[in-house]
Amino acid sequence: MMKAILVIADGMADVPLKELNNRTPLEAAGKPFLNRMAEAGICGMIDIISPGVPPGSDTAHLALLGYDVMEVYSGRGALEAIGSEIDILPNDMAFRCNFATVDKDSKVIDRRAGRIENEDAAKLASAIQESLRMDPPEVADVLFKSTVQHRAILRLSGPNLSTMVSDTDPHHVGSRVFEALPLDSSPEARETAKLINDLSLRFHEVLKCHPVNTEREKKGLLAANILLFRGVGQLPEIDPLTLLYDIRPATIAAVPLVKGVCKVAGMHLIAVPGATGTYETDVIAKAKAATQALQSYDFVLVHVKATDLASHDANFQRKIEMIEKVDALIGYLMENVNLEVTILAVTADHTTSSITKDHSGEPVPIAILGPNVRTDDIKEFGERACAKGGLGRIKGTDLMPILVNLLGKASKAGS
Amino acid sequence: MMKAILVIADGMADVPLKELNNRTPLEAAGKPFLNRMAEAGICGMIDIISPGVPPGSDTAHLALLGYDVMEVYSGRGALEAIGSEIDILPNDMAFRCNFATVDKDSKVIDRRAGRIENEDAAKLASAIQESLRMDPPEVADVLFKSTVQHRAILRLSGPNLSTMVSDTDPHHVGSRVFEALPLDSSPEARETAKLINDLSLRFHEVLKCHPVNTEREKKGLLAANILLFRGVGQLPEIDPLTLLYDIRPATIAAVPLVKGVCKVAGMHLIAVPGATGTYETDVIAKAKAATQALQSYDFVLVHVKATDLASHDANFQRKIEMIEKVDALIGYLMENVNLEVTILAVTADHTTSSITKDHSGEPVPIAILGPNVRTDDIKEFGERACAKGGLGRIKGTDLMPILVNLLGKASKAGS
Repeated sequence: MMKAILVIADGMADVPLKELNNRTPLEAAGKPFLNRMAEAGICGMIDIISPGVPPGSDTAHLALLGYDVMEVYSGRGALEAIGSEIDILPNDMAFRCNFATVDKDSKVIDRRAGRIENEDAAKLASAIQESLRMDPPEVADVLFKSTVQHRAILRLSGPNLSTMVSDTDPHHVGSRVFEALPLDSSPEARETAKLINDLSLRFHEVLKCHPVNTEREKKGLLAANILLFRGVGQLPEIDPLTLLYDIRPATIAAVPLVKGVCKVAGMHLIAVPGATGTYETDVIAKAKAATQALQSYDFVLVHVKATDLASHDANFQRKIEMIEKVDALIGYLMENVNLEVTILAVTADHTTSSITKDHSGEPVPIAILGPNVRTDDIKEFGERACAKGGLGRIKGTDLMPILVNLLGKASKAGS
Repeated sequence: MMKAILVIADGMADVPLKELNNRTPLEAAGKPFLNRMAEAGICGMIDIISPGVPPGSDTAHLALLGYDVMEVYSGRGALEAIGSEIDILPNDMAFRCNFATVDKDSKVIDRRAGRIENEDAAKLASAIQESLRMDPPEVADVLFKSTVQHRAILRLSGPNLSTMVSDTDPHHVGSRVFEALPLDSSPEARETAKLINDLSLRFHEVLKCHPVNTEREKKGLLAANILLFRGVGQLPEIDPLTLLYDIRPATIAAVPLVKGVCKVAGMHLIAVPGATGTYETDVIAKAKAATQALQSYDFVLVHVKATDLASHDANFQRKIEMIEKVDALIGYLMENVNLEVTILAVTADHTTSSITKDHSGEPVPIAILGPNVRTDDIKEFGERACAKGGLGRIKGTDLMPILVNLLGKASKAGS
């Protein structure tokens, strides 16, 4: 019985950097195990969405799990909510929120309120919940919850709501907080926009004089005096992987958005102590957990966030270190799983440019190692090396069918 | 702020020719600058529409500008009309017309009336316009205008017209001029076909005894005694490039059809003295104009027609000369634009076979040079060399997203 582990290193692919003699961080990294995978397996490039299009982390994982993003993607909010262990029902809508700091003119000073600590955010969230309990809005049941640092979720449930409303998050420091606008002419969009603007104001009132913020200001910290709403979404209507591919799938991931996508795809989430989604994440703990998970599951996704963080910080040296951590994870897997009956695949969910610090539209490298794969002559796992690989240039949605085929579980089209 | 120049050499790609020791004209040409671009950039192959499908010049340019041809293409006529500075409104329809020569049995002797000179064609067109003014058709407002040599445009405006009518152009010498037929059972198609047949006859009556033709026959020239109607079309409903990609686009092109496509895509047309669309075209003038245009625009398309003309004439030696002119154009750009902040891309809009003298379905080579592109190890710009390039095999509609991503202007799909 074949099994598979897919390692996704977030934003691992990059562009050539002058500081690295025109190599990418992946090309420059010491990565003996990734290279061994490339040499013993088959390589190629993946356009996660389509050539030139920079994917988000949510759409990228949906695509790599085989879902047609253009058809099923319905916003980030609900995915992140579900990954933060907030129940979302099919008709609920959710916003991702940021605790942020505004000045007296509602101009944004910091979109993350100085990356406020979990404890302060939780206290502020309680105050907001209490105010909602005392004076609930008429048109919707409203749940507000803080998650990690400045991050929070706003869930709305009600019969007459619409996701056709714009963000209040201006996405730029120095801009005033936006008013939510209806994006179509339905009464539902109008009412929802009104509700959002009402909540924006109410939350601001609760926050601006809250003792936690007074205390923060005394300490010279930024007050979390507003919430910015963005990425409204509902659950995508997708079939679970088990139904689509007859597999038992599990995920090891720390980031709520990725956990949410995987949960919606019907994957079990395996919690791993030490897997933090930060630079300090314990990749060997993840690799061990993945190896163990093969006993109960036949498809295990391992997600590593740290590679992406480093590129968003434009820290290519740190990115190289994180890629070397991914290499250690791969090394553990190569040495501890039975490669006679296990497919190993490694890729990135998108390119993140260490120059622009943002997701970029170049394809990402992929290597697949397994007992019966048609190997090629690629000897290095890198953006340019894999471009010559035997897989050629495939799309994100091609990966699952390719892996499922190697698992011997592909359904024939026709007869 | 990054900028981009895209050079499209019409029909530059070809098939291997025995006379060139099984090389293509592009492979046989002296092209140091094209090769330098290939060496310093990333190469690949483009299926303009899809593998094996020969594109037209109109559909090819629509695809290379990122539009899904299968969805938006609505005939050549309106595009060529707009490229010839004839106003076309959304519901207007237009035919491309040829002044042609028929014998007494309406059999076509020459589809281009001996490539009649502009002056003669204009005089004949005036006579036709005058006859329309004296006796206007009831069902439509009709405009007729000659453009270059044997080329002319017929524009019809009216509430009850349909583009579902067939050509009167038999497309073959020796055939009789066709009757336009309705292509569906609507009364509009029937009425429009009737109008076309009526105009075909009326124009023939005006032309056959016209003094210009009497004079031509005296001189031993072919009489332009009929007009052949073909390629009926309306404006495609497409969003302008500025809206789709947040770019300021301009075009340097001489051929009305290409100018029309670019105009419909919301590009400014830059007129360049000496850019003629013929073998004599001044490519350095074009390159200079493109370099200057970068001051006001961030995406400049430069089109060169001469490569295609040579293949339609089955003159591979001439084609090689024209490719060498394109190489000089590239050379000027490489030496005069700031390559630190400029993307240069070069491709063809389709393969034109010097054997069949017609468009052919093979993919075309592409090379992209820019500061952060993932270079490959290709050292020659040619059909077979580029097939091994790092871009792999992409589609025509992929090119714009790839360039827009390199410009740093791509929108994230998802979050």
